[in-house]
Amino acid sequence: MNLQITKPTLLINKEIALSNLQKMQRKAKENQLIFRPHFKTHQSIDVGKWFTNIGVDKITVSSLSMAVKFAYKGFNDITIAFPVNPLEIPEINSLASRCHLNLLVDNNEVVKLLNKQISQPLGLFIEIDAGYARSGIPAANVDEIKEVLEAIDHENIKFKGFLSHFGNTYQAQSRDEIRQIFERSTAQLIKLKDLFIGSYPDLLLSIGDTPSCSVIEDLSMVDEIRPGNFIYYDVMQYLLGSCSFDQIAVAVACPVVSKRPERNEIVIYGGATQLSKDYVFDQNKNKVYGLVSRLDQTTWTQPLNDTFVCSMSQEHGVISMPKDVFDQIKIGELLAVIPVHSCLVADLLSENDLFV
Amino acid sequence: MNLQITKPTLLINKEIALSNLQKMQRKAKENQLIFRPHFKTHQSIDVGKWFTNIGVDKITVSSLSMAVKFAYKGFNDITIAFPVNPLEIPEINSLASRCHLNLLVDNNEVVKLLNKQISQPLGLFIEIDAGYARSGIPAANVDEIKEVLEAIDHENIKFKGFLSHFGNTYQAQSRDEIRQIFERSTAQLIKLKDLFIGSYPDLLLSIGDTPSCSVIEDLSMVDEIRPGNFIYYDVMQYLLGSCSFDQIAVAVACPVVSKRPERNEIVIYGGATQLSKDYVFDQNKNKVYGLVSRLDQTTWTQPLNDTFVCSMSQEHGVISMPKDVFDQIKIGELLAVIPVHSCLVADLLSENDLFV
Repeated sequence: MNLQITKPTLLINKEIALSNLQKMQRKAKENQLIFRPHFKTHQSIDVGKWFTNIGVDKITVSSLSMAVKFAYKGFNDITIAFPVNPLEIPEINSLASRCHLNLLVDNNEVVKLLNKQISQPLGLFIEIDAGYARSGIPAANVDEIKEVLEAIDHENIKFKGFLSHFGNTYQAQSRDEIRQIFERSTAQLIKLKDLFIGSYPDLLLSIGDTPSCSVIEDLSMVDEIRPGNFIYYDVMQYLLGSCSFDQIAVAVACPVVSKRPERNEIVIYGGATQLSKDYVFDQNKNKVYGLVSRLDQTTWTQPLNDTFVCSMSQEHGVISMPKDVFDQIKIGELLAVIPVHSCLVADLLSENDLFV
Repeated sequence: MNLQITKPTLLINKEIALSNLQKMQRKAKENQLIFRPHFKTHQSIDVGKWFTNIGVDKITVSSLSMAVKFAYKGFNDITIAFPVNPLEIPEINSLASRCHLNLLVDNNEVVKLLNKQISQPLGLFIEIDAGYARSGIPAANVDEIKEVLEAIDHENIKFKGFLSHFGNTYQAQSRDEIRQIFERSTAQLIKLKDLFIGSYPDLLLSIGDTPSCSVIEDLSMVDEIRPGNFIYYDVMQYLLGSCSFDQIAVAVACPVVSKRPERNEIVIYGGATQLSKDYVFDQNKNKVYGLVSRLDQTTWTQPLNDTFVCSMSQEHGVISMPKDVFDQIKIGELLAVIPVHSCLVADLLSENDLFV
């Protein structure tokens, strides 16, 4: 592994990431779907080019700032999959004059503000909550959805369809549960489409969670997918069954700085400001902030047995391991931490990424 | 409140922060201690000047990168309170040629590497674990401490003393428990000082946690304090009893983007990439990612009753609240989120801080 690494560094395995990307693009094609991948995972101009290179020209982002960043680099069909922030409408106008923008709303107050303030043509999705209970109008609230549709009153605002994020799949305990959530959630969207397709014949259904897009083969009942995490995957997706370990395309190289033989624990330079405080529970109910591998000349190896980041402060990561693993690790060595949530790690470590 | 805020922005109340700073400096003076505040909390050149202005010229940081940043701005007496990362020794030499640097070790392997590779004069602290169980040599391992001391074999390396971080005070349930942890931990350090003061008459005891430094009045048994968080404090410190709510000097202004009357929940633009995923449990065992206040013309008000950030994704924060509070909040309004852990929030939001 590159000897120039001296501090926590995000390693991105390009070959794995490209393979994940091609696989998802193929699935979208086979299902005749619009493929509008979410760029919040990587937030990287370099990685964005991999998408452009295989013909992806529609993207999703989760903030206006991210949309501005990618529009500046030539992306010109962008959905901001986050409820419109009324305070940013002037900036939205400015961006919509340069590229095609789709916005998201879940209430008619914001639609009224858009009617008054929008000066550029743009697309509008209504966010539907199909069970995740974060943002979005609950799918059963048909009257509320109608009110929002009726509130749209501006020649520049074109209703595009219903957008939903089945975020509850990230809490599933098995691939079967992912399937159940997917089926229950899409059934609600299809019902809405049936209700409104008469008035809006071009109405699209757009969904986006990586677990569904990875696990479900037949996605033909929707019109667009917006997965993001799939490009890198991570420990959370691996434990969920969305991917195999070999499909995880990112790791954080972290220097070993301390060893405590009394506890078979190792301290790495790599804490909350590099790895984030996201965690999962393993089968033994341990709080896991990351799995751990060794680094060889080209990339990281399979995860070390019973070895995981067990606690974390701002710059310290503590790794728990069995004695035989502990005895092999040296102070000054680089270990690979496979992150629990690649989106947050990529956001924290964006300055010094290394492609391997 | 400033109308130019359109997205999550860290608000720093300078008056409160200066008052926190002066109070801690006064305590250090009254106890005749070296005051070496930790800059990992704010990581800000502007805030660093507030320290310089009142005569603080010794600082603590938690990484070499942070040391380089502050040395570049004129700080020339810096302790890196993180175990030496052997991969960074060349850069350490480079920095130590420009300012006085103190390093931290907890094993003799690294001391041997320093003996071989160090080319500049520097100070060396041995990290003692007085019960926190993160890094550091357990205080009872006197032989191991002796080995490290005996391993120091370079005219440029001067042993400075024992440094400890009582990080377990952050898990205390009361001010009394903070006091107990402090007493138990300092007792161990004093014992070590008694053992080694004969051979090292200038030996210092350096401690650093904000809960101890805030709650304990008599700190005269140690020689140096390194608190960091006290400059801003946060919800964690408030619930611990380290500070009053009025001493919290930071909040994150977040736009309201969605309201769900079915659940009395509000969605703000402000998620894990702005607020971090750190949380505390409140008295009702709710997972709390931040308290919430309204913003008036000059600053934030007292926290809203039973109102807290209850869940979080990359850009979404969800706030739970009683109906009477819910009814008062408008989409497009800015709310103030009082962060659980100000160090992590300052790290995430450092680009657009606003002093109020």
